[in-house]
Amino acid sequence: MKYELYYWPSIQGRGEYVRLALEDAGAAYDDVARGAGGMAAMSRMMEAGDTPPFAPPFLKAGQLVVGQTANILLYLGPRHGLAPKAEAGRLWVHQLQLTVADLVLEVHDTHHPLGPSLYYEDQRAPAKKRTDEFWKQRVPKYLGYFEQLLKNNGGSYLTGRRLTYADLSLFQIVEGLRYAFPKRTKAFERRIPGLVDLHDRVAARPNIKPYLASDRRIAFNEDGIFRRYKALDL
Amino acid sequence: MKYELYYWPSIQGRGEYVRLALEDAGAAYDDVARGAGGMAAMSRMMEAGDTPPFAPPFLKAGQLVVGQTANILLYLGPRHGLAPKAEAGRLWVHQLQLTVADLVLEVHDTHHPLGPSLYYEDQRAPAKKRTDEFWKQRVPKYLGYFEQLLKNNGGSYLTGRRLTYADLSLFQIVEGLRYAFPKRTKAFERRIPGLVDLHDRVAARPNIKPYLASDRRIAFNEDGIFRRYKALDL
Repeated sequence: MKYELYYWPSIQGRGEYVRLALEDAGAAYDDVARGAGGMAAMSRMMEAGDTPPFAPPFLKAGQLVVGQTANILLYLGPRHGLAPKAEAGRLWVHQLQLTVADLVLEVHDTHHPLGPSLYYEDQRAPAKKRTDEFWKQRVPKYLGYFEQLLKNNGGSYLTGRRLTYADLSLFQIVEGLRYAFPKRTKAFERRIPGLVDLHDRVAARPNIKPYLASDRRIAFNEDGIFRRYKALDL
Repeated sequence: MKYELYYWPSIQGRGEYVRLALEDAGAAYDDVARGAGGMAAMSRMMEAGDTPPFAPPFLKAGQLVVGQTANILLYLGPRHGLAPKAEAGRLWVHQLQLTVADLVLEVHDTHHPLGPSLYYEDQRAPAKKRTDEFWKQRVPKYLGYFEQLLKNNGGSYLTGRRLTYADLSLFQIVEGLRYAFPKRTKAFERRIPGLVDLHDRVAARPNIKPYLASDRRIAFNEDGIFRRYKALDL
């Protein structure tokens, strides 16, 4: 069975957490909206069936359609060795992924504090304030938490000796922060040596390294979650 | 086994979605931080064990500690008849709950657009702008989605003929919007007759009705997610 991933074709966004899992697992998938069917195929799927997703990304696996990034990973994880099969372990990895999802939302709010339906250009001043708070309060809280978990496990992976999809997502967080806030991130990295090391090990994985170099990996840009606005990196 | 729920003792907040599920199920639980142990018991738990939660709420079930609201409900649902046991149904209900969680975060952002670590009083003007966008764009999108799902199912419950924890959460959404934005909500309710009807049926359920009248139900207040600020209800 070949998975069908449905997500906006021109950004990494939330779909990237799913792409990284599928790529690391070596799973066969179509990134549908980037293919011949394009956005029309995605729109059709959003209106069809008994379980219409609220928003992309969503994954078609045979007859099943699963939406919400963390939920897709919950489904994929145990099937592809990216999460334990036992309930307690599955719930723990999912819990960490939901915490990553909260962080991702707060990243988005740095450039869209007045809401997702207005342009950044219409909210520059509040964006600057929110970003300052984000780096002062939220980044240390979130990344400090994940750094501590790594330390508790002797530095290998978030939940122990085996990589999970939550580790892949943390790679993306570090990568995204480096893109969006190069100066702030550089200054902060001395406080998260474990996360930086995890990032580097993920980037070098046998399936991730070629993926990152391929054109399947969309470049960061200012339509995604992580956006580079100079005014927010001061 | 008696569950232990850990959450801030003076607000409904995110803990309320768990309380509603436990109450509807008639499950035995201690709301620990509201008991003799108080906040100290909660703080101790947050620093103990191999799977420390990032933030409340979290649930102790025997030896298992589960954090993140939607993850707790994922765990409780099939055990208490509040979600299907089969995987496809479990994922679908969870997907809806994660969409509710996104909405809850956007509700919080209406009064805290500049971030959770500043006071509302320090962000009144951006809060007004965010709230206007919320009601113009986001409420119609989210509640319109849930209303349509109810319609697709003939109006009974979100996912079919049986109530799930996602229905309980939607009760709380309607209740919260009515508290925080009485005028706006009143004007909007004509567009969501199915949700209003679902709200009323949940409120009348044999275990929910006495819960709502009991002192286990904390009153809405301006420390929670749903806050009544007159300036935001114009």
